[in-house]
Amino acid sequence: MPVLIVGSIALDTVKTPVEEHADLLGGSASYAAVSASFFTGAQLVGIVGGDFPKAHVEFFESRRIDLEGLQQVEGESFRWSGEYMTDMNVRETRSVALNVFEHFTPHLPESYRQTPYVLLANIAPSLQSYVLDQTARPRFVVADTMDLWITIAKDDLLALLKRVDLLILNDSEAKMLTGETNLIRAAEAIRGYGPGYVAIKKGEHGCLLFGDPSKQEFFSCPAFPLANLHDPTGAGDCFAGGLIGELARADEAEITFDALKKAVVSGSVVASFNVEAFSLERLRTLTNEDIDARRGEFRRISQF
Amino acid sequence: MPVLIVGSIALDTVKTPVEEHADLLGGSASYAAVSASFFTGAQLVGIVGGDFPKAHVEFFESRRIDLEGLQQVEGESFRWSGEYMTDMNVRETRSVALNVFEHFTPHLPESYRQTPYVLLANIAPSLQSYVLDQTARPRFVVADTMDLWITIAKDDLLALLKRVDLLILNDSEAKMLTGETNLIRAAEAIRGYGPGYVAIKKGEHGCLLFGDPSKQEFFSCPAFPLANLHDPTGAGDCFAGGLIGELARADEAEITFDALKKAVVSGSVVASFNVEAFSLERLRTLTNEDIDARRGEFRRISQF
Repeated sequence: MPVLIVGSIALDTVKTPVEEHADLLGGSASYAAVSASFFTGAQLVGIVGGDFPKAHVEFFESRRIDLEGLQQVEGESFRWSGEYMTDMNVRETRSVALNVFEHFTPHLPESYRQTPYVLLANIAPSLQSYVLDQTARPRFVVADTMDLWITIAKDDLLALLKRVDLLILNDSEAKMLTGETNLIRAAEAIRGYGPGYVAIKKGEHGCLLFGDPSKQEFFSCPAFPLANLHDPTGAGDCFAGGLIGELARADEAEITFDALKKAVVSGSVVASFNVEAFSLERLRTLTNEDIDARRGEFRRISQF
Repeated sequence: MPVLIVGSIALDTVKTPVEEHADLLGGSASYAAVSASFFTGAQLVGIVGGDFPKAHVEFFESRRIDLEGLQQVEGESFRWSGEYMTDMNVRETRSVALNVFEHFTPHLPESYRQTPYVLLANIAPSLQSYVLDQTARPRFVVADTMDLWITIAKDDLLALLKRVDLLILNDSEAKMLTGETNLIRAAEAIRGYGPGYVAIKKGEHGCLLFGDPSKQEFFSCPAFPLANLHDPTGAGDCFAGGLIGELARADEAEITFDALKKAVVSGSVVASFNVEAFSLERLRTLTNEDIDARRGEFRRISQF
């Protein structure tokens, strides 16, 4: 089954303690769609300007991503610039230029409206809701979010969550959204807002997946041990894309917690590759054999 | 096989956002020895004052802990007082009174000197080395340490590490000791100081066990999901005690990485129970059946 993915498409400038690169392919939907494309067909909804390099479009095409929902308009593409400190867990945004993204209205092509798996990658929750308005009761909706929306659009986010099956956010965002200091209680609170499942990303500490506590639905996914991170940008988006891609690929009669566990591992696997190089570079050469091998590694490092 | 455990024995006063208790049984050796006692016989080396409650000694005895190495002298016992903030990961030491501990010289009874498994629980590295001086080439030596010793006794610690098989420390201490910001590189650096194995504790994020990277010896142990921590004091000491207790119980012909993984899980299991109540209270009623059941839970939450 295909997955519908909406989010940002950006040109990034990223600086780390050792390197700096400009005009990189970036944005939540770019990472998520390419990640999902290793598992199933992805339909991309987003907007770019006239300056958007043809090579980036061709990369999407090489991954057989459906671009009917990609709007290309006059003006400049969304641009983001960030810098990672010596501790790669610490990032500073240097500049953001919304450009064409400022007036983005995500219109779904007719052919996308019945797509059963939907990933609302990180954009404003009002836009995420607007996308859902155009769909015909998708089977499973995953939403990603960030601290910005919790701060400036919490009501929109809470309205969206009533319509979401799985919310993805990081540990500090989960605490910020709920006011809880304990992640178990934070996840319980978020389930109270609507989503039956919550995935809390903890960066180098892996990821926690929460379902129904009365069914003991809890999963702790390790992080892959990496001595050198080259660029953490997009790791969370790759995680989300791989997760829904795996779910859509399997398309099981019943979406069980075991299926979600496998999807969390698949998302973690793609994310662990993506941070090995700048932008989406590592995913250009990644193969499904690489993914299967690392899934085995994830099993080896966490089983006893 | 028995384990020899040396460390501090204290009377603690602990305050959390909801409770405060005084004159609790505490100290690194107390927690570690009681934890180890669920797996094998423990020999305790430590010092207490004339004020040390008889009930605490009786508790050690009820756990069949060998107390020939326990020195009881005139004066007051070591006292520690700490406070946990709303975020239970944040602790402030309110006061420390070394008292009889200030002049502690850990003398090993003759009957302890051949003990094959040794845990040097958290005390000054010079004392840890002095204990090793009195032993006859133990089979496996585990050492715990803390930020204080890295700051004020780093040379002593580095000298000790040449004689240690497994070092236990937390993530911030591993970074402090090595100057690395990445835990994989920090563990590699520590292995360069001597210990073949390194266990890095990450609190609510679980624990990482590192062995020989060329043999892909890496294990990520999850943390047990706890919505309510009552008192995190001693969790690391229980981890260390359970770990060496499990190793000594198994006493395998060859101490494999698989055996160490199992030991890390056993240590994590006991630690996860211990934080459910103040001081060592939870361990008073804990059974080996409880431990086995939770080991199964650890497997369930991390397997896919």
